[in-house]
Amino acid sequence: MKYKNLLYAQSGGVTSVINTTAAGVIETARKSKKINKVYAGRNGISGILKEEIIDTSLESNTQINNLKFTPGGAFGSCRFKLSNPKRDLNQFERLLNVFKSHDIGYFLYNGGGDSQDTTNKIAEFTKNAGFPVQCIGIPKTVDNDLPFTDVCPGFGSVAKYIATSTLEAAMDVKSMSETSTKVFIMEVMGRHAGWIAASSALASNEKGGAPHIILFPEINLVQAKFIKKVKETVLREGYCVVVVSEGVKDARGRFLSDSGRVDAFGHKQLGGVAPRISEMIQSKLGYKCHWSVPDYLQRSARHISSKVDFDQAYAVGKAAVEFSLKGENSIMPIVVRNKSKKYSWTIGKVELKKVANVEKKLPRTYITKDGFYVTKKCKDYLQPLIQGEAFLPFKDGLPVQAKLKNILVKKKLEKFN
Amino acid sequence: MKYKNLLYAQSGGVTSVINTTAAGVIETARKSKKINKVYAGRNGISGILKEEIIDTSLESNTQINNLKFTPGGAFGSCRFKLSNPKRDLNQFERLLNVFKSHDIGYFLYNGGGDSQDTTNKIAEFTKNAGFPVQCIGIPKTVDNDLPFTDVCPGFGSVAKYIATSTLEAAMDVKSMSETSTKVFIMEVMGRHAGWIAASSALASNEKGGAPHIILFPEINLVQAKFIKKVKETVLREGYCVVVVSEGVKDARGRFLSDSGRVDAFGHKQLGGVAPRISEMIQSKLGYKCHWSVPDYLQRSARHISSKVDFDQAYAVGKAAVEFSLKGENSIMPIVVRNKSKKYSWTIGKVELKKVANVEKKLPRTYITKDGFYVTKKCKDYLQPLIQGEAFLPFKDGLPVQAKLKNILVKKKLEKFN
Repeated sequence: MKYKNLLYAQSGGVTSVINTTAAGVIETARKSKKINKVYAGRNGISGILKEEIIDTSLESNTQINNLKFTPGGAFGSCRFKLSNPKRDLNQFERLLNVFKSHDIGYFLYNGGGDSQDTTNKIAEFTKNAGFPVQCIGIPKTVDNDLPFTDVCPGFGSVAKYIATSTLEAAMDVKSMSETSTKVFIMEVMGRHAGWIAASSALASNEKGGAPHIILFPEINLVQAKFIKKVKETVLREGYCVVVVSEGVKDARGRFLSDSGRVDAFGHKQLGGVAPRISEMIQSKLGYKCHWSVPDYLQRSARHISSKVDFDQAYAVGKAAVEFSLKGENSIMPIVVRNKSKKYSWTIGKVELKKVANVEKKLPRTYITKDGFYVTKKCKDYLQPLIQGEAFLPFKDGLPVQAKLKNILVKKKLEKFN
Repeated sequence: MKYKNLLYAQSGGVTSVINTTAAGVIETARKSKKINKVYAGRNGISGILKEEIIDTSLESNTQINNLKFTPGGAFGSCRFKLSNPKRDLNQFERLLNVFKSHDIGYFLYNGGGDSQDTTNKIAEFTKNAGFPVQCIGIPKTVDNDLPFTDVCPGFGSVAKYIATSTLEAAMDVKSMSETSTKVFIMEVMGRHAGWIAASSALASNEKGGAPHIILFPEINLVQAKFIKKVKETVLREGYCVVVVSEGVKDARGRFLSDSGRVDAFGHKQLGGVAPRISEMIQSKLGYKCHWSVPDYLQRSARHISSKVDFDQAYAVGKAAVEFSLKGENSIMPIVVRNKSKKYSWTIGKVELKKVANVEKKLPRTYITKDGFYVTKKCKDYLQPLIQGEAFLPFKDGLPVQAKLKNILVKKKLEKFN
């Protein structure tokens, strides 16, 4: 009897440990005798529609192991939403043809909320079409906004990067503050949920420590209150570190980064939120400001990944294969926090239909009453997620990364438009 | 006989290893029987004028050792230029009084070009005033623009951070490029010299690897040529990573970040060079861009410091004390690259008067003919400087940092205005 092939693919914004999940999938599947080949979609579902399927069996064990040290999406990811199957079945029929032609029995889709909606729809479609493919979602997002799972793989590492960077940059600005920069503003990712911004608070374990102010997308910014707080902080501490989420909104609920302002030439004004906050402080208080926008650096900083996050990223990949082998379908492995005093976790599961398109925001109880900081409850939640340093080999002064051949299997179908 | 005290101070923009130099100074001085106490100026020369002098003998050996893991300036730094002694001797006389009152025999000033000019002037003034203080400059600057020394302590670590971040972020944008971001722009420090921008090239050890384009302050940017190069890169590689120095200038030699543009409200337009380059590419080519400005993160990232840089930072601190004990004056220890096949270095010295106010730019032979990349000669120079990872202990998921008491010695003088 010939066993079925497994198709794994990456979707949405990547993380520093999504390839660790890929390694978890591939290494676990390689050990099983009930899975034939592990394929990977090139650039997620977008490549699968084009029948661009990578044969991972052509990669050495060493290179699959090196995936654990490699940020980004090693097989390519995509921002691509399938059409609504109620209106247009074209893409779903194409996927079914690709699955049939390449004897796919398992489809593992590694992504966030939108992607899991896709995974769920594919499961339903293939079942109804009489060629049931077991579809397992694998959680991944630095935004930490998936429901049910205690944490999303990828988040713990960004949290560690942001907390570390806040700690380090705070030392810098503190030492310059008497005669130079008084306020440092760092803009972090998280358009709709303030989890990453909140993680900066882990840098502070003492009274008066940085960050002093955190701006969340969940709390509309009242400028006068904010400016007052900055001033009080500088007068008290000599300097002020502000961490701002890219998704922060003004008092009327409009994105600060999208206020429709144009420059003298009529171009839409550029820059993220950090330069805007910097301008606000400089014009109101006259303090010299510096600002930072790490952008992709924060979610690809594999060199400072959290060991807990790394382990969880591997575990969800491994579990996805194990669930597949147990005959599970339309589910997603999740991280479950045990009710123990010392932090520990296990892998559970949730039905995909429950996950799809739900966004988990920072609860109000995780934000202080004045809206400018996190509560102890929030720090207690976050603290375990940045624990441990995920080992990384260096060569010639730089992190080692996987070098994959990414060879496509021979196409069997017509071109798809 | 009572031995003299040593006064150490930090000046200018800080680095991730300037406190390692401080540890080199303090640990070496503690071992010597010919130095009484090691004092540190609070906030550099600015605090010394106010007679704000920290007694480092009150810090434990453990905390002095922890300085090696602590970025920023642990005693405070400053941006402060002494008045010209030919016109106003007030500040110099005050310094002399402070030195006399606290029995300072050695003054070690840890800073860049401007600071070494200060150190030199102080040496001359105290000699002429009949209270000669041995003044030793200690090199430090992430900009790597000091002459004579092969490299400036602080630079190797930024170079390692920037090369690592380029490597990591490139994996991210590459994996998203088919359906999303095609161009990633990272703005790095270096207002007048392109050393930091150049170091990003270490991320690429293969044909076609990122970064694809580097923009230096030494080369005026010709927009049409640049846009053509971005387009060619995206067509060939599928994506493009641009590293731009904050000091890049337009074709007419004006800073791109300082073009005098104002927004609709008449405010001076904000934002660094990266968002400007991003706008340029988006408007000319329509590619989706992402941009990053690490700012202080790059020069305070002790968690990814270079071991070579760390060792050199310690060595110049140690050497400064050893030179002091040998009776040297008005000199600065420098890093000398040995003429060996395998990289090795020793500590030499240079007269301060030669160092003061000289800026070492990237030589034209280090930049490719088209102006958009570095030559092999440049990479050969840079490569050894990022070697090795400087060990760093973590606690609760974050780097351990020194906790100094920074207790001031009792003031003996009148207040100074």
